Amino acid sequence: MSRQFITPADQDPGPTQRVPVRTMRGESMLSREDLVAVEAPLEIRIAAVGERGPGQPVSVTMRTPGQDAELALGFLYGEGVIHSRSDVASVRSCGAEGNVVRIELSPGVALDSTRLERNFYATSSCGVCGKASLQAIDAMLEARPVDSTLRIGAKLLTTLSATAREAQSGFRDTGGLHAASLFDPQGRLVAACEDVGRHNALDKLVGSMLRDGALPLSSSLLLLSGRASFELLQKAAVAGIPVVAAIGAPSSLAIEIAERTGILLVGFLRGDSFNVYAHGERLL
Amino acid sequence: MSRQFITPADQDPGPTQRVPVRTMRGESMLSREDLVAVEAPLEIRIAAVGERGPGQPVSVTMRTPGQDAELALGFLYGEGVIHSRSDVASVRSCGAEGNVVRIELSPGVALDSTRLERNFYATSSCGVCGKASLQAIDAMLEARPVDSTLRIGAKLLTTLSATAREAQSGFRDTGGLHAASLFDPQGRLVAACEDVGRHNALDKLVGSMLRDGALPLSSSLLLLSGRASFELLQKAAVAGIPVVAAIGAPSSLAIEIAERTGILLVGFLRGDSFNVYAHGERLL
Repeated sequence: MSRQFITPADQDPGPTQRVPVRTMRGESMLSREDLVAVEAPLEIRIAAVGERGPGQPVSVTMRTPGQDAELALGFLYGEGVIHSRSDVASVRSCGAEGNVVRIELSPGVALDSTRLERNFYATSSCGVCGKASLQAIDAMLEARPVDSTLRIGAKLLTTLSATAREAQSGFRDTGGLHAASLFDPQGRLVAACEDVGRHNALDKLVGSMLRDGALPLSSSLLLLSGRASFELLQKAAVAGIPVVAAIGAPSSLAIEIAERTGILLVGFLRGDSFNVYAHGERLL
Repeated sequence: MSRQFITPADQDPGPTQRVPVRTMRGESMLSREDLVAVEAPLEIRIAAVGERGPGQPVSVTMRTPGQDAELALGFLYGEGVIHSRSDVASVRSCGAEGNVVRIELSPGVALDSTRLERNFYATSSCGVCGKASLQAIDAMLEARPVDSTLRIGAKLLTTLSATAREAQSGFRDTGGLHAASLFDPQGRLVAACEDVGRHNALDKLVGSMLRDGALPLSSSLLLLSGRASFELLQKAAVAGIPVVAAIGAPSSLAIEIAERTGILLVGFLRGDSFNVYAHGERLL
């Protein structure tokens, strides 16, 4: 198939936007321009191979424009709708302002309609929505252990933040973007993605690895710019990532998922200190 | 009706939980106990008045236990399912670990089934989920202006943070909770709610005001502990709040909602400085 795998939108509003702002500091006031993170809806649609129509909507999410194709791929992978790049024939950004991504499935790839039903109405911020009941969440807790023997040095962990910060231009510009960054076992940055929604940032990261045929990520370290929630650990586990480090605090359920799936979970990674919440045996 | 309006759960897991943790600092390692924020699913169900059954599930959200009844009330108010305390006959926490809230509607209160359909699968983190299409989001952007002539002094704004911090015990304990705090025009704290999800914290706050018959909040100031997103401004607008101040950055769509609904939107509120993004004319 000579067709392009990913067709970008004709126009892309970009991840940041200039707005007028007045800054107050004590008694003084200054009018200037400020950069803010763009937040805009994205609709993800799925079409059968060769289908001409617009496809079936499966999700609307509020995201920061950019890497929309990767966001859609990562989201569908995390939800178990697709399992590899070969499950997808093409990805096309379309709609006014490029706010629709249409994913065409490969021949022979069946769409599990119960999954689709569950995923309808899913969101950037929480993959729990779209799960119809508490029972479905219990099922999600039964995530499979990651298949990895990776062990890393404590010192390496303390270098990740500085490396990622250099790559995270959006946060530097706006102060309003979350980042998900991937590293190899030597602590070299592999990829970094940003979004107003922390779950979107991770979906973009996993989606770009899927695009490159690099899944599962069993020799990778994930750095989260904020807090670690249930949902982020769930997505990391599905992608096979054995080490997750967060700048912020973990939740109780994030720790539980990490324990069940064999993920080394680190929180409060700041300067040369951090807390180990699960699977410390992965630390050398 | 002599029946209790809110019936709490028999057991409440509480907002925080002790976990074993190893803290690494340079070369040294210390084993100790740490407090983390609890994250657990809550199912919201609606029943007609006098209905015996468990009711119809309308949402599953990941939240921090505590004020579950208020969370459910605030969520349904923000989504336009209920409009005042009198629309609700009773609220009862039930289920294993108190993870279900059952809301019984008052006689004559009809449930708009299209709203229910939209809200099914909604989530803590993003009220956008449950909206079936980009068109529905466009409709949400047509929020009604808040009905308030409130104007406040710049100096007052700079006092809110310190006042709120004193009340926010959960964050102090875990570093992992968002807070939504409400103030009167003199800068006195009216209420403060915490949750792992920032939208839940605001739902709990609005729900507790609805419980007390205090809506709309047209003489109130809202302080957000983190960033200001579309969804938070949407919820504030529905509750009639004319002033929203965030410690973090606003998104582009948060600014747009504030502009359309007449809300003074302040971001990066730190020390004696802040940025004004919309309706600065409310500042004296």
